[in-house]
Amino acid sequence: MPATPLLLRLSQPLSLDGGGTLPDAQIAYQSYGVLNAARDNAILVCHALTGDHYLAGPHPVTGKAGWWDRMVGLGKPIDTDRFHVICANVLGSCMGSTGPASIDSENGERWGMRFPVITIGDMVRAQAALLDALGIDRLHAVVGGSMGGMQALVWAAHYPERVARALVIASAARHSAQNIAFHEVGRQAIMADPAWAQGDYDPAGPGPAKGLAVARMAAHITYLSEEGLTAKFGRQLQNRDAKTFGFDADFQVESYLRHQGLAFTDRFDANSYLYITRAMDYFDLAEEHGGRLADAFAGSAAVRFCLVSFSSDWLYPTAESRRIVHALNAVGAPTSFVEIDSPFGHDAFLLDVPALDAVVAGFIGRSGT
Amino acid sequence: MPATPLLLRLSQPLSLDGGGTLPDAQIAYQSYGVLNAARDNAILVCHALTGDHYLAGPHPVTGKAGWWDRMVGLGKPIDTDRFHVICANVLGSCMGSTGPASIDSENGERWGMRFPVITIGDMVRAQAALLDALGIDRLHAVVGGSMGGMQALVWAAHYPERVARALVIASAARHSAQNIAFHEVGRQAIMADPAWAQGDYDPAGPGPAKGLAVARMAAHITYLSEEGLTAKFGRQLQNRDAKTFGFDADFQVESYLRHQGLAFTDRFDANSYLYITRAMDYFDLAEEHGGRLADAFAGSAAVRFCLVSFSSDWLYPTAESRRIVHALNAVGAPTSFVEIDSPFGHDAFLLDVPALDAVVAGFIGRSGT
Repeated sequence: MPATPLLLRLSQPLSLDGGGTLPDAQIAYQSYGVLNAARDNAILVCHALTGDHYLAGPHPVTGKAGWWDRMVGLGKPIDTDRFHVICANVLGSCMGSTGPASIDSENGERWGMRFPVITIGDMVRAQAALLDALGIDRLHAVVGGSMGGMQALVWAAHYPERVARALVIASAARHSAQNIAFHEVGRQAIMADPAWAQGDYDPAGPGPAKGLAVARMAAHITYLSEEGLTAKFGRQLQNRDAKTFGFDADFQVESYLRHQGLAFTDRFDANSYLYITRAMDYFDLAEEHGGRLADAFAGSAAVRFCLVSFSSDWLYPTAESRRIVHALNAVGAPTSFVEIDSPFGHDAFLLDVPALDAVVAGFIGRSGT
Repeated sequence: MPATPLLLRLSQPLSLDGGGTLPDAQIAYQSYGVLNAARDNAILVCHALTGDHYLAGPHPVTGKAGWWDRMVGLGKPIDTDRFHVICANVLGSCMGSTGPASIDSENGERWGMRFPVITIGDMVRAQAALLDALGIDRLHAVVGGSMGGMQALVWAAHYPERVARALVIASAARHSAQNIAFHEVGRQAIMADPAWAQGDYDPAGPGPAKGLAVARMAAHITYLSEEGLTAKFGRQLQNRDAKTFGFDADFQVESYLRHQGLAFTDRFDANSYLYITRAMDYFDLAEEHGGRLADAFAGSAAVRFCLVSFSSDWLYPTAESRRIVHALNAVGAPTSFVEIDSPFGHDAFLLDVPALDAVVAGFIGRSGT
């Protein structure tokens, strides 16, 4: 599998939902497996908030396995022996695609907070332009978990003729008030850091690392379940026999969270975090249809859908998947839905959950079918 | 009802669970209703993390009603016509009792982060010293919600001979990994603020207001339920017809949370927030008994208990109250337990929930009974 990213500079300015266009947008992507002669075995996998396009195989920067290596590869549920799998870094991110840390070609300056606020729809529009450039008219499937699932929903709603199947895992058709609230805490944590400097920090330096770490810590709690945290950490102490009666990380869960926060600041850009969380908060597929979600899928009756939720996911709980299923039923789209019993909370879609593998493999099926 | 706080300077150094003693500790408290001649109609109400001793009537600083005015007063469920109700500001707080913003009498300097780390047990020990000074041997009841419930549990476990009844609302006998995690996010948000200055900021100035506001925002989400947030705010916009495609508070829930964060910094001290959250994280009543909660109540069989939880409280969920009930059943303590159906999340104990009023009034009963 190739280790260097593929890059596409879009030939046309990208139209944005917020108005105007983004000139010279660049999309970093990666592909796995061979596109067949009929060009009908492509699967687009959409990544989550902080993900990237290094889906499978070793990550060229970290050396660790790609974020969905357990799901995508030879002989895996999304089998690269049969499918041509594509994953693109989302617009607004910092992993190679154009985002606030990129240079605005019109004035040679870093975008920073002058980057336009984008939407999930804009991310998908950029992916559609990528597929155009790759000569792929129609996807065998679009697949995503969490924010990736939101993109899969938009693909099915906005480009139903280009999607045979949509697999939406641990996701929602809108951000709830609680979802928005947690994201707002993260954004305020970043903006409260003087090193954020209204977004005009040097992305090569530490920037608002302290604020970004706090944002990640708060978000990370929402990715796990209470029962999972209790099972993994409980009230166990970190490398000590007794509480220190101080403010060190006495508890394992504190040490773990601090590590999650710090490690994140090494790999992610604070402004990108602001923009992508904003795109997620703005996401409400029903909104452009007067609040009626079924109307968003009025043209999607020929798309096959599969919705997956996890029992302990309280970020995008099963009720949100059910709401999508009801809308799809209303338009007669062939839809399957499964709630998988798992203690891992929202993060289950990234973890070792064999039941998910079976659902994915079964739904994706064989190329050409 | 008196508007000026009552103050007690403890005559003895206060022993602390972390070792050592705290000299010259001062406890600010308030009382309502008349102590009868038998001195057996006193009820101690314990406040939550950010509460104070102004329980009922107008608050002398804010002019608003005290935090439990709906529950305590003439003709109210805790009727001051019959009971002598006492509420003391907890040790470590910033509302009048000794805490990190106080002056260390031994060197004339502000304690700051040199204040000793305290526990819920220490708070209760200070309250016991207060009752000693007031000549109250035995309480008709000790009552508290959230952290106040933890104090009520400690009263019943450590001083069973001084407590006829313990009413524990929306609380837990230990802080879970998720509870600790949320508090750690708040502490890190405060400590990430350069204005925190290792705790040596001027409490009269703004101090680490930005970090404290972020801490409060994160905590505030945990006080509400997902369904409550959806019902109250949903995805409604704040004084605008359309999204602005910017980072202003477009959504009502964002505006609300920002307000909660900012308003909090006007009334609470950041170091106190660190110390009191730490005390809560350290709380595990079973720990000192080898993890067996029933053993903590071995001497409490003569205390009458009432446990109340709320169906939508995910901070201290019903399962935590049930765990306490099982332990009390194991020692044969007369215990009643009710889960009240409410959409208000953890904050229900402070809100207009008539079912709670009925439970409180019924359990507290009449003086002398």
